[in-house]
Amino acid sequence: MFCWLSRLYLGFSTPTGRITHLIRSSLSRTLVLTSQRRIPEFSSFVARTNTCGELRSSHVGQEVTLCGWIQYRRQNIFLVLRDFHGLVQVVIPQEESTASVRKILCEAPVESVVQVSGTVISRPPGQENPKMPTGEIEIKVKTAELLNSCKKLPFEIKDFVKKTEALRLQYRYLDLRSFQMQYNLRLRSQMVMKMREYLCNLHGFVDIETPTLFKRTPGGAKEFVIPSREPGKFYCLPQSPQQFKQLLMVGGLDRYFQVARCYRDEGSRPDRQPEFTQIDIEMSFVDQTGIRSLIEGLLQYSWPIDKDPVVVPFPSLTFAEALASYGTDKPDTRFGMKIIDISDLFRNTEVGFLQDALSKPQGAVKAIRVSEGTKYLKRKDIDSIRKFAADHFNQCSALGKLRLECADLLEARGLVLRDPALFSFLWVVDFPLFLPKEENPGELESAHHPFTAPHPSDLQLLYTEPEKVRSQHYDLVLNGSEIGGGSIRIHDAELQRYVLATLLKEDVNLLSHLLQALDFGAPPHGGIALGLDRLICLVTGAPSIRDVIAFPKSFRGHDLMSNAPDSLPPEELKPYHIQVSWPADSEAEKSSLNQPSHPES
Amino acid sequence: MFCWLSRLYLGFSTPTGRITHLIRSSLSRTLVLTSQRRIPEFSSFVARTNTCGELRSSHVGQEVTLCGWIQYRRQNIFLVLRDFHGLVQVVIPQEESTASVRKILCEAPVESVVQVSGTVISRPPGQENPKMPTGEIEIKVKTAELLNSCKKLPFEIKDFVKKTEALRLQYRYLDLRSFQMQYNLRLRSQMVMKMREYLCNLHGFVDIETPTLFKRTPGGAKEFVIPSREPGKFYCLPQSPQQFKQLLMVGGLDRYFQVARCYRDEGSRPDRQPEFTQIDIEMSFVDQTGIRSLIEGLLQYSWPIDKDPVVVPFPSLTFAEALASYGTDKPDTRFGMKIIDISDLFRNTEVGFLQDALSKPQGAVKAIRVSEGTKYLKRKDIDSIRKFAADHFNQCSALGKLRLECADLLEARGLVLRDPALFSFLWVVDFPLFLPKEENPGELESAHHPFTAPHPSDLQLLYTEPEKVRSQHYDLVLNGSEIGGGSIRIHDAELQRYVLATLLKEDVNLLSHLLQALDFGAPPHGGIALGLDRLICLVTGAPSIRDVIAFPKSFRGHDLMSNAPDSLPPEELKPYHIQVSWPADSEAEKSSLNQPSHPES
Repeated sequence: MFCWLSRLYLGFSTPTGRITHLIRSSLSRTLVLTSQRRIPEFSSFVARTNTCGELRSSHVGQEVTLCGWIQYRRQNIFLVLRDFHGLVQVVIPQEESTASVRKILCEAPVESVVQVSGTVISRPPGQENPKMPTGEIEIKVKTAELLNSCKKLPFEIKDFVKKTEALRLQYRYLDLRSFQMQYNLRLRSQMVMKMREYLCNLHGFVDIETPTLFKRTPGGAKEFVIPSREPGKFYCLPQSPQQFKQLLMVGGLDRYFQVARCYRDEGSRPDRQPEFTQIDIEMSFVDQTGIRSLIEGLLQYSWPIDKDPVVVPFPSLTFAEALASYGTDKPDTRFGMKIIDISDLFRNTEVGFLQDALSKPQGAVKAIRVSEGTKYLKRKDIDSIRKFAADHFNQCSALGKLRLECADLLEARGLVLRDPALFSFLWVVDFPLFLPKEENPGELESAHHPFTAPHPSDLQLLYTEPEKVRSQHYDLVLNGSEIGGGSIRIHDAELQRYVLATLLKEDVNLLSHLLQALDFGAPPHGGIALGLDRLICLVTGAPSIRDVIAFPKSFRGHDLMSNAPDSLPPEELKPYHIQVSWPADSEAEKSSLNQPSHPES
Repeated sequence: MFCWLSRLYLGFSTPTGRITHLIRSSLSRTLVLTSQRRIPEFSSFVARTNTCGELRSSHVGQEVTLCGWIQYRRQNIFLVLRDFHGLVQVVIPQEESTASVRKILCEAPVESVVQVSGTVISRPPGQENPKMPTGEIEIKVKTAELLNSCKKLPFEIKDFVKKTEALRLQYRYLDLRSFQMQYNLRLRSQMVMKMREYLCNLHGFVDIETPTLFKRTPGGAKEFVIPSREPGKFYCLPQSPQQFKQLLMVGGLDRYFQVARCYRDEGSRPDRQPEFTQIDIEMSFVDQTGIRSLIEGLLQYSWPIDKDPVVVPFPSLTFAEALASYGTDKPDTRFGMKIIDISDLFRNTEVGFLQDALSKPQGAVKAIRVSEGTKYLKRKDIDSIRKFAADHFNQCSALGKLRLECADLLEARGLVLRDPALFSFLWVVDFPLFLPKEENPGELESAHHPFTAPHPSDLQLLYTEPEKVRSQHYDLVLNGSEIGGGSIRIHDAELQRYVLATLLKEDVNLLSHLLQALDFGAPPHGGIALGLDRLICLVTGAPSIRDVIAFPKSFRGHDLMSNAPDSLPPEELKPYHIQVSWPADSEAEKSSLNQPSHPES
């Protein structure tokens, strides 16, 4: 059950990158020794001599001290002790001389914390448990100490994952004891550590912390605001360190990375978090190819050993190709079923609605071939596809969604289309630089952000037909989810001014520091940010990003454990020169100030 | 000039910890190879083949491509190119056939960014520059490209550090190009990376990110507030992850660390930052000795090789001893001049003011022996000491301050008391658990925080004379600055309730989640936090913590580069249900809304 941990740590100690691969072939002895050094000492500096989960036949005869939680007890004869590393069986002594030890071990409630000292012994023949990594041994206890008694839990730990997510979040400290949360958080820590080794130790990147108390960026409507002690002046929490990382390039720190906390206030949205983490990277003197190779190497090097190795280079599609073949800019390439243009077959059709479609500008007839569809799909599946198509009529992305819908239906009928062990990476490139503004299609807005450089081949179009300019933006897609995005940036001050002021009609005063920096010897540069929460979620196969974050917020942005956000007495707002504008219809709420509110259920 | 970088990276690749020391003796070949792997490839993925600073005689004959900034030009014959790694001399070709290359290299303003390709050649005999690490070679250029031209700078880069700090902060991206800022930020990155290796790879700690959108903690008057979209509900930015790290221990993640961003709103205070970083650590099943050994090993392992090695274990003093001998709880132990109690010499004195002092409860006569004082101190120094003493009359810490004042005076006269190469670590332990409240001395407040465990020997005093209870808090002091602090925590829910409700009279409802967590099988645990900014400041010898932070705030909390905090139009506050309460006498300020304000000078 708990052998995952050794696999995790041993796994991460084996190098998988191309560079280390070369070293491996010539220096295998070195690396074995290096790996051995990399298995951490889990019991240094503390009361225990060993972890519960590490004991094996080879430890028989050793005197050990263990600390852990009581998982369960069997007839006052055996007790199973648990720590993060695993489970071990403890024999409760039955002799009269050990009455005090027996009393402690028999009376402590489940989930109490105990420390036991004793000898590792082999289990009697026939009583080994092959399903348990420690199943060949047990502990003959000499002394025991109750470190903390556990009150009656509102539920049993082992059934915890079956509870509602609200309950799990309210008692997060209990949920964290579960195998899955321990695995997710430890894998996250290990994977980030490997990324740091790759960036910092192998490639000379500098880990630099950038401020989170910043100011509003143009168009930053989703930024949290923080009142300062100066009346009417506010900090903002940035959505990314974008401006700072570009300024670092101007400052000659030419390989920057940061595991950066970012903030986005989107109100209530499922599977989003108001604060999230990205692997934030910027390099000088680099082009798209350089960033792509860097990231491919990064993922290969940090990939967990218990998954299939990452194959590089990743394939790439242009934005136009992705839309044409998959109906989305983040295609799931684990399976085919591409969208095919069959307009030519129907040029001379007499079918009315097809004629109608083809007669429109850019009108087309497209199809998806659901191979084995006749074998797997039932009548009502076809009906549901038809309804789905009708519901999404006239949406550009209808075919892309239909493709995923068909995949869902096929898998519900037993066909395995998307192998859960398969990780299918894809670069999507050549995005448009601008899009028509939603509220005013006559004006342009940045497809990504205003610092994105135009595609070199389209530079002249900027001054004639800017809506046709492709950008040097690239997205990294994994199994149909966008896990990263970046671009080569504009490093020419005049070009940046033209884009901001003339094309986007932004107030350039808000960005005067950045424009001035570009004037003072800014090197060509580019970068990328990987969404760490989403990436770890996909790697671990967790159902939600909340399962790879220690203390996530609920979809309404609440901390259900501590009840944040919370009311504040008005006098605590005074130093910040703000007061609450109570909505007219909620005067009643004022009276509830300082009353603890009920967690959402 | 720039050989610091190689020293930095080579330095960090050599293990210094005790554990690796053992390995080193038996496996020297392995470690040499491991170290070699640890010198990063600074030119992977980019246009350059080499850095400017790395070229030596051994590169002679190689074709190289370099990217960098024009440092200066001599008579249109030589050009010195700079990157983060160092300087290199480029020979501007004089032949007619290379007119275009010559034009680029002769016309580009200083601090422009160029890319050059050419051959590494030896300098002609007699023209080597032994003061320059690359002084034996120069680059014979074949092609050159102007990557970005630099506008006329408001000042010269090399004199930049002599400018006011406000100017440095306003043009931070230029300041970052300086040798000193590059060194400070790269050393910080390397030292933190080594800390991560020690914690994560050697000792099995898990790097876990905790939320920064939290709620007000009891007594958290210095916490920034963030309005949410729910009327009257606010998040707070935490001063430390204290509650979360304790909850992680309850969750069985028994070795946690985080390089944690923390926030404290103290208004304007010199050498403080509203956001700062701490190395945050928590362990289960540990005692004070364990935490101390862990931290001693951590600092030894991560210490830069170009400094004297850290000697462990660190000495320790009790709080009472520190006060008695040094007049402060963070003594600078690089020099002696301890405070000595000479009351006994004066028991029978007839000198009035001494009689008077000794007759008071706990009255004492104390002295500092300023050895060589007669040799170094002048008449006016004695006068200034006398004035200093008078100014600080009746302050408990007067003698401690006087000791430092004497040291300053002695050093001003040429005596070296505090060796700048000496790093003198000290643990201070056995602090009082409670202090009388300043505003109401009849009540108690926590000397550190309410989760600190009482000293086991003083447990009973908690119920009789709580003001006499010592705590299990420990501070780490370096050269007279507190660089860390921590404690063994209370893990018993009843004890925690008693401390909070009965002794501190806090509203326990605000901490109900933590109290409940202690009830459900909390292990004994403790931890520490090291102030990273201060530590790096002391290691680098920087005059201010602003010199070890990429983008610090001014002492008034302003970002002088981007002008944060800034005004916001009222409609952007609307979703957060707040409005500005303009102070009565500053109605005029409202009219300045949206006007860019002038940076402080």
